Amino acid sequence: MTATKEDPSKKKAKESQDEEFVDVSPQERNWKGIAISLLVIVAVCSLITMSVVVLTPAELPGNNKSRLTAADLYKPEFSVHNPEATWISGCFPVKVAVESSCRKCLQRARDGGDGAQEEERTARHCEESDGDVTEEKGNSAFEKETAFKAVKYSLSADLMYALFAYDVKQTYRYSYTASYIVYNIYTREVWELNPPEVHNAVLQHAAWGKQARQLIFIFENNIYYQSDVRSTSLRITSSGQEGVVYNGLADWLYEAWIDFYVTMVKWISNTHLAVRWVNRSQNASLLTVCEATIGVCVQRHEDSSGTWLSFQGQEPLFSKDRSRFFLSLPVKQGGQGDFNHITMFTKKLRSDKDEVRHLTSGDWEVTKIVAYDENNQIIYFLSTEPSAQQRHLYSVSTLGLFPRRCVTCGLKDECSFFDAEVSPDAQHAVLHCKVLSGSSPGGQGVTDEFRLDWYLGLVGSEQVIVARLDGRGSGFRGQRVLQQVHQRLGTVDKDDQIAALQYLVKLPFIDPARVGVFGEDYGGYLALMMLKSTENLIQCAAVQAPITDWSLYASTVSERYLGSPWTEENKYQASNVLTNMKSLQGATLFLAHGTADANVHFQHSAELIKHLIKIGANYTMQIYPDEGHFLSRRSQIQLTHALIGYFRGCLLDASLLSQLKSDD
Amino acid sequence: MTATKEDPSKKKAKESQDEEFVDVSPQERNWKGIAISLLVIVAVCSLITMSVVVLTPAELPGNNKSRLTAADLYKPEFSVHNPEATWISGCFPVKVAVESSCRKCLQRARDGGDGAQEEERTARHCEESDGDVTEEKGNSAFEKETAFKAVKYSLSADLMYALFAYDVKQTYRYSYTASYIVYNIYTREVWELNPPEVHNAVLQHAAWGKQARQLIFIFENNIYYQSDVRSTSLRITSSGQEGVVYNGLADWLYEAWIDFYVTMVKWISNTHLAVRWVNRSQNASLLTVCEATIGVCVQRHEDSSGTWLSFQGQEPLFSKDRSRFFLSLPVKQGGQGDFNHITMFTKKLRSDKDEVRHLTSGDWEVTKIVAYDENNQIIYFLSTEPSAQQRHLYSVSTLGLFPRRCVTCGLKDECSFFDAEVSPDAQHAVLHCKVLSGSSPGGQGVTDEFRLDWYLGLVGSEQVIVARLDGRGSGFRGQRVLQQVHQRLGTVDKDDQIAALQYLVKLPFIDPARVGVFGEDYGGYLALMMLKSTENLIQCAAVQAPITDWSLYASTVSERYLGSPWTEENKYQASNVLTNMKSLQGATLFLAHGTADANVHFQHSAELIKHLIKIGANYTMQIYPDEGHFLSRRSQIQLTHALIGYFRGCLLDASLLSQLKSDD
Repeated sequence: MTATKEDPSKKKAKESQDEEFVDVSPQERNWKGIAISLLVIVAVCSLITMSVVVLTPAELPGNNKSRLTAADLYKPEFSVHNPEATWISGCFPVKVAVESSCRKCLQRARDGGDGAQEEERTARHCEESDGDVTEEKGNSAFEKETAFKAVKYSLSADLMYALFAYDVKQTYRYSYTASYIVYNIYTREVWELNPPEVHNAVLQHAAWGKQARQLIFIFENNIYYQSDVRSTSLRITSSGQEGVVYNGLADWLYEAWIDFYVTMVKWISNTHLAVRWVNRSQNASLLTVCEATIGVCVQRHEDSSGTWLSFQGQEPLFSKDRSRFFLSLPVKQGGQGDFNHITMFTKKLRSDKDEVRHLTSGDWEVTKIVAYDENNQIIYFLSTEPSAQQRHLYSVSTLGLFPRRCVTCGLKDECSFFDAEVSPDAQHAVLHCKVLSGSSPGGQGVTDEFRLDWYLGLVGSEQVIVARLDGRGSGFRGQRVLQQVHQRLGTVDKDDQIAALQYLVKLPFIDPARVGVFGEDYGGYLALMMLKSTENLIQCAAVQAPITDWSLYASTVSERYLGSPWTEENKYQASNVLTNMKSLQGATLFLAHGTADANVHFQHSAELIKHLIKIGANYTMQIYPDEGHFLSRRSQIQLTHALIGYFRGCLLDASLLSQLKSDD
Repeated sequence: MTATKEDPSKKKAKESQDEEFVDVSPQERNWKGIAISLLVIVAVCSLITMSVVVLTPAELPGNNKSRLTAADLYKPEFSVHNPEATWISGCFPVKVAVESSCRKCLQRARDGGDGAQEEERTARHCEESDGDVTEEKGNSAFEKETAFKAVKYSLSADLMYALFAYDVKQTYRYSYTASYIVYNIYTREVWELNPPEVHNAVLQHAAWGKQARQLIFIFENNIYYQSDVRSTSLRITSSGQEGVVYNGLADWLYEAWIDFYVTMVKWISNTHLAVRWVNRSQNASLLTVCEATIGVCVQRHEDSSGTWLSFQGQEPLFSKDRSRFFLSLPVKQGGQGDFNHITMFTKKLRSDKDEVRHLTSGDWEVTKIVAYDENNQIIYFLSTEPSAQQRHLYSVSTLGLFPRRCVTCGLKDECSFFDAEVSPDAQHAVLHCKVLSGSSPGGQGVTDEFRLDWYLGLVGSEQVIVARLDGRGSGFRGQRVLQQVHQRLGTVDKDDQIAALQYLVKLPFIDPARVGVFGEDYGGYLALMMLKSTENLIQCAAVQAPITDWSLYASTVSERYLGSPWTEENKYQASNVLTNMKSLQGATLFLAHGTADANVHFQHSAELIKHLIKIGANYTMQIYPDEGHFLSRRSQIQLTHALIGYFRGCLLDASLLSQLKSDD
């Protein structure tokens, strides 16, 4: 994990109007005394977000061995240890395993034991085992001798059975198909989970029910239900049709846009659901509470925006009697615009209207409401209060003057970017020190979270500085920063990237003749827009799966920022990378894309390539056949080397060219 | 056009068994005195064919301007002038034009005038006009003012009308869809050609009939016939179905394999057809004469082979009474194996058997029988008699000792590769000095024909020698050379390329540390196979649309050489580029492919890329979105620059590496 110090150049960056939202922060300032020119690559990340990670390799003799190389990035010692802790009772997290040595801890959990120390020890023991299952001959209903490599698992509500998925095949980003076995943890009995009269079924989903040993699964777009692990399954829908009707499943759009039209559904009691509905232009939404037994929904909250409504996937937290709920909503902070804060809605007696109270305020944002301890009237939430790059867990009382307390501040020196999973009774929390960011406006590239990326292999071995940048359009700095890209993608967001770059290349230790940019999907879009609107600022550019034409992109995203393509054709045209792209302004370009990318379709790159051929541009490319938006590990390694090779060669060429010019 | 001198190194190359079929011929030996090392790129062309074109750039000061550059290759002064001369009468060729100034020459042709001198002058005049048609308001049935850019045309049998195709859209290599207008050359009247009750029809084919003003066309996979240019068209088939039933059209396989199952159909009288049938393994064929009116076919010739039958698209030449016909067939030439020669079949009285006579013989090949002058009992044909690289037009009498005469030998000093179109009465011929070669075993890469290729831009500006090579499997050197690849593609053919390369790198003026190969489709396959089976011989390789797996290629080709994939799985496996490819043996690879290639599908390159990622190979690529096997001019230019850039960089790197090694 990397700790980022407060940025001294921030004040300077704020001096001009253009740079109002640019945050440039050197991570380590150990470059003092370096007299030679340094190369700059600006990594325009897949979020519009901003910051600078400065990792300057001091040329010390004998120091080479300690440098990070491209190969290091894929070594096990650099991979994040994730115990995959999951709450299965009210008191402690357990990585589920099926080894007999773990049965005891599961038994204890079932019996409700909660001596904290012992549980911690037992849980740790369980974490060390793995999820492999070997069916033992004679013991199994199928008499197989082969071992399954089970990669997904879940436990029945009574903790007696485990469900293991094997032969898992990715569909889109989250969805997958798999075959499943049910495993009795105590008798070691194993059998396959199949619909009636089907063998070796490939299921689209399988999960335990909320009670005892209920099972639910989806096969050929229809939902099946089993009241018990051993009972016959009942098909409860029959309208499923491949590519047309999905029962119990999200299609690609709902899956990938992690908020679309029906943006959120959440069970808030055994019979009640909270549902949020958003209109197509995504500037009006309704939060309703629906009674599942009679199918009637009652509106609880309405929202609208002059631009678009963000954060619409957010789940409200309800009190048990549903009279009170909590949401994070934009609240005006004087002249600084709106910031997301916890809002408490309480039903007034003899009134349809709720009483509304804001529990927090300030020029920082609540990023997630994680739990509501109803007994103690406390809300737990994550926020950016100390810094936009950080996330800390806070508590706030819903009583009195809403006193709040930072739970994680100072907890661990090396961690300032937390995520939390709170136990069902809100008495314990699992704290994570790593959070992955989403990939469009509203995201953030410059944070204190731990990340390994290809460019670390470059800064480890070359005289290169890499800066990550967040500009207008990025999240967690208030609505004003976020919403400035409305109806003008590729303008102010791109301007901020350029402004930061122009600031950087004026620094004395940076060689302005050797500057590169890198961007992925939306970042790739920005990198290409930057190339188009600068001259001789950038010599080397690399883009991965870039968006080049918003009319080819998911309509739910494009329409949110640009409106309907039928009425706003000009805006789509203006925001298209290819419009008026007559050259790469002297830069060379490296392009990488997976041909089976279901997020940024390969067509984006195909259109770009056709245009590059047309204008006679200087570019190279790598394609990844049959790979999606998230490349396989093997292709990631290949791309890491290709990118490093590209920047090394391109910056060297730029250096030679610059030398030739100065010789002249 | 380039003239190639007799090759002095040929004898040397023939000394060893491995090099038996290798022909290495320096085109210009002006490299004497060059002391510096030269770089070698072996261009493995899309045929297995062989030869060496040595273009050594002497380092003379002030000589740079006369060198050929990549940009030169696409200048108009280097493009071939093709008057598109077509025989429309028995006496002279005319480029059809519709300008009124040409009407006279058409009129003369219709009236049968044949004063040779005047015709030549008139014809030349016609050639200078072009095929644009402007419909004149008021004069046209459609009252349009727009001009059509007609790119294809044909004349009615009575020379009164022209048929112009516009909005031509390529389907596969030869097929296209288009809209058509009929134009009265004398009244300038114009109208569209449409099926009944259809407007602006896009037709799959349209042509004049053999008599008067008959018209035939194909619309939505059905055939339409008009007995006169103004009569209503009659649909004569109704079974046409997109992608399933093609009436009057070839599907992709028949079109691209320029001989498949029914390999040849030819009208030999108003009521008789010659048809050739070949079995799936392509080692047995029947030539039949069918009577169209009653649908009965009679066998005239049978052929079989221990390997495969080549040349099966060849059209037989029949005498008017069908009692005699001519074919080019393999004939044993002592110990030198079989060579294709003209065979005359004459019906014997009171016998089912034909009398068979070979009109030619020798260790050279008849490549095309072009005409039969029945009045004078003379056959005109093209052959390789002077050299396998050359094509000359010969005549041979069918009488006496079959005396033959070279018609074109010494005709024009700068031309030694002719094609001929003989007039219907066999009294005149249009001679062409340029012939394009096809792209699999049986083809030829080393000929005297004129060609401009990307590598000329490299030899024009760098110290590079380019050699084109023909090995076993190539055509026009007898059946033994051709058929040695049977059931072992990628073995002896590849060995010959390597043998030639090993011979070349031993030459004193060649730097063995800087050697590259280039190949396209089958040549790309050979280049990759060469990489796999050599070590440190090749430093730089480039392949365009390479075949990597014969089971992915057109079955008609794969099965001809390797047999059925169901019974010969091992042979397919052994000939697969990816089998046992563990590295690129220290070489780097450049790969180019059009994504819409209907000949060598993009899948070949996709599988290669996946494998290259797997083995961590050093490669770069260019893809051409929506482009087929034959790239657009724009993409060809881009690829030319990319290939030259690649070899320049790669050979420079190889040079630096070699220098470093020698410094050590």
